[in-house]
Amino acid sequence: MSDEQEKVILEEEGLLASLSSHNLDAFRDIFLEQHPYDQAKFFTKLEEEARFTVYSYLSPEEMAAIFENIEVEEDQYETYLSEMDPTFAAQMLSHMYADDAVDVLNELNKDQVASYLTIMDDDAAEEIRELLHYEEYTAGSIMTTEYIAIHANQTIHSAMQILKNEAPNAETIYYIYVIDEDKKLVGVISLRDLIINEPDLMISEVMNERVYSVSVGEDQEEVARKMKDYNFLALPVIDFKGHLLGIITVDDIVDVIDEEASDDYSKLAGVSDVDSNDRGPFSAAKKRLPWLIILLFLGMFTASLIGRFEATLDKVAILAVFIPLIAGMAGNTGTQALAVVVRRIAVGDPKEHSSLKMLMKEAGTGLITGTICGIVVTLIIFVWKGNFILGLLVGISILATLTVATIAGAFIPLVMHRLKVDPAVASGPFITTINDIISILIYFGMATLFMQYLI
Amino acid sequence: MSDEQEKVILEEEGLLASLSSHNLDAFRDIFLEQHPYDQAKFFTKLEEEARFTVYSYLSPEEMAAIFENIEVEEDQYETYLSEMDPTFAAQMLSHMYADDAVDVLNELNKDQVASYLTIMDDDAAEEIRELLHYEEYTAGSIMTTEYIAIHANQTIHSAMQILKNEAPNAETIYYIYVIDEDKKLVGVISLRDLIINEPDLMISEVMNERVYSVSVGEDQEEVARKMKDYNFLALPVIDFKGHLLGIITVDDIVDVIDEEASDDYSKLAGVSDVDSNDRGPFSAAKKRLPWLIILLFLGMFTASLIGRFEATLDKVAILAVFIPLIAGMAGNTGTQALAVVVRRIAVGDPKEHSSLKMLMKEAGTGLITGTICGIVVTLIIFVWKGNFILGLLVGISILATLTVATIAGAFIPLVMHRLKVDPAVASGPFITTINDIISILIYFGMATLFMQYLI
Repeated sequence: MSDEQEKVILEEEGLLASLSSHNLDAFRDIFLEQHPYDQAKFFTKLEEEARFTVYSYLSPEEMAAIFENIEVEEDQYETYLSEMDPTFAAQMLSHMYADDAVDVLNELNKDQVASYLTIMDDDAAEEIRELLHYEEYTAGSIMTTEYIAIHANQTIHSAMQILKNEAPNAETIYYIYVIDEDKKLVGVISLRDLIINEPDLMISEVMNERVYSVSVGEDQEEVARKMKDYNFLALPVIDFKGHLLGIITVDDIVDVIDEEASDDYSKLAGVSDVDSNDRGPFSAAKKRLPWLIILLFLGMFTASLIGRFEATLDKVAILAVFIPLIAGMAGNTGTQALAVVVRRIAVGDPKEHSSLKMLMKEAGTGLITGTICGIVVTLIIFVWKGNFILGLLVGISILATLTVATIAGAFIPLVMHRLKVDPAVASGPFITTINDIISILIYFGMATLFMQYLI
Repeated sequence: MSDEQEKVILEEEGLLASLSSHNLDAFRDIFLEQHPYDQAKFFTKLEEEARFTVYSYLSPEEMAAIFENIEVEEDQYETYLSEMDPTFAAQMLSHMYADDAVDVLNELNKDQVASYLTIMDDDAAEEIRELLHYEEYTAGSIMTTEYIAIHANQTIHSAMQILKNEAPNAETIYYIYVIDEDKKLVGVISLRDLIINEPDLMISEVMNERVYSVSVGEDQEEVARKMKDYNFLALPVIDFKGHLLGIITVDDIVDVIDEEASDDYSKLAGVSDVDSNDRGPFSAAKKRLPWLIILLFLGMFTASLIGRFEATLDKVAILAVFIPLIAGMAGNTGTQALAVVVRRIAVGDPKEHSSLKMLMKEAGTGLITGTICGIVVTLIIFVWKGNFILGLLVGISILATLTVATIAGAFIPLVMHRLKVDPAVASGPFITTINDIISILIYFGMATLFMQYLI
């Protein structure tokens, strides 16, 4: 932990004291020195009463900085805003970066949004309205309109002047975008280049005409990948005609990468969301039960399948001994294949590997792992039970199961991807249970064939 | 796909043509226009012969840009370097940002590293040697030494001069760090502030004395979290005495977040690595078999457990019907708990939730989900089989299993974390198989108790 963090922890007591003793100056002196993230963290820890004091101690602009850095459960935002005087809240929203303001407003109902927008000054309201249109998880939904744009036919010196004026409000000043008279994006220049080059050079001479941009409807995962690959600090967002609409900054992308990753992770584990989990066991149970109930019924189906083989089991009870082994192996290999395919769909750009190729590869993998595990299991059982037929039965079942289960693990997410469903939805538990069923059918199918040799 | 990307694809043919026709100028004209990431992507697609031509067409400095953006399997680096003339390779490494050069050198054996460092010019070699000392996954291992540092007792104007001179080599110029005479970090100022403020102001008047920094030994995940929370573009790295050693830039952090996430993901699925997976089914099988074999033996153990209950099964074959259901449910709930705990250890800072608290919470969650699923299953079986005792047996088993399995799913990663083992190693399949065993013991234990009522 760095000195800064220790300092922040020490200051917390001071802040709490100044709040309870209603010492405005003392509070502002300490609080406004802190980084907005620390301010936000402190604010979210406060009781309702203390929060009211804070609203009265800070300006809408100062409050905006906090809200740009706040991390709470969605429904919290509504609570906070409802506590504020509507005009104060509206002003705060208008002082926030448009993209952050939109994130907050997206958690409110339409009426609330409308009312805040009407109180707000028109320019801010306009900017926000535009952004509200864009669909969630698209470039448009995470872009901001506070960028700096200049024209090619001006000098670096004049560009620097514009920069100095707009710097306080722009979300980033490190890339300046060059547009033509009808707002089409024609180039980009980094602040680095502005500084290195002679002030009297024309922008057109130093700007980079190869501008990487994303279209406004592009998936945020795509944007994140591009930003990561090219190490950009910001990416311009354009419409289908090439007009500059806004920019996406790397800090938002860091959040996207983090969310998407933990989202895939949660789904693989069959939990709706593993992160926002600071509440009690009941809310946790509520989040996990849907999955468990679905899987319970799938499990009952598996049970009913085995039920059909009760006669077989009556004759050869030992068969039951290997059910978990075979079902388990099927589940594991299926999950492996699932993870690989989901991940590759997520990271690689789709062209690079045709679905069929992936499927064939997984089939091959399943066949290889199946053969090896099958042989191993046959030998173990032969040695352990001295029953070669039984060993062979289980071995062949393992071979067949692993092959099919691996293919299933790859096939299901691929189909979902084709159907434009997020493949990660085919979570581990789901695949596992599907493969339980497959494995039971194969195992008892084989058993029925082998029956005469087993008794 | 943006116009830029289409353009790059079109240019590829031109580049290949110019290589095969040995047209140096044509190649350089197109190639040097491209973004280093596109250059790297093109380079890694080339055959050995074509790569040799590229080495002869580009300067070490131009080659360095490619290597800073290359993404290949570790062992590829050695191949590339061995293809180059040693002096050329050494010069290339010295032109790379120190942190990237270190990443490459870390893939070579000690002798190779030593020989390159000796050919290299001393300053570069020195910088790299320092960085090579730091342990993997620490702040030191991902930091770079190409930062800009100034003193507090100079004017903004003179600082800007320094900036202009160092800009070409610095990895970022957007934060300038302020140090005292013995190199202690005392402040930071953003380029934004330098530009907004009057040139004749002193740095000491405008710099921010609250500098967030990370210590050189800090875990890279910690660094990533801090950078993400505070939306920094760079973080200074200091030693225990507060001396400025280097900086970590956000582009490296984006990679860290991505790696750590897909690493946890792979482990949850029980695959050594889901990403570097562009090879054939054999290498894929090789990666997955270790897990499958371990699980196979654990599965055999489960089987032998059930074997002990063969007598019970002989009497009441129907018991077998519910084995996969119970084992499956245990596996699923265990994986859920595992994912939640692993993720919370990864994202939350450890103080915030004591292990015991987490454990208690998971126990509660397991009890709730267990009770509900237990009741549901009892009813279903009662309706389906008209056998209440059997329903009760399975229901109680589910209740007990889910509770224990959930606790196990949370307990195992927590213990690993305490033992300083990466908790993510307790992968889904592992927990699942452990819970298979637990569930079998509970289920057949119960069955033996209920025996008299079942027959």
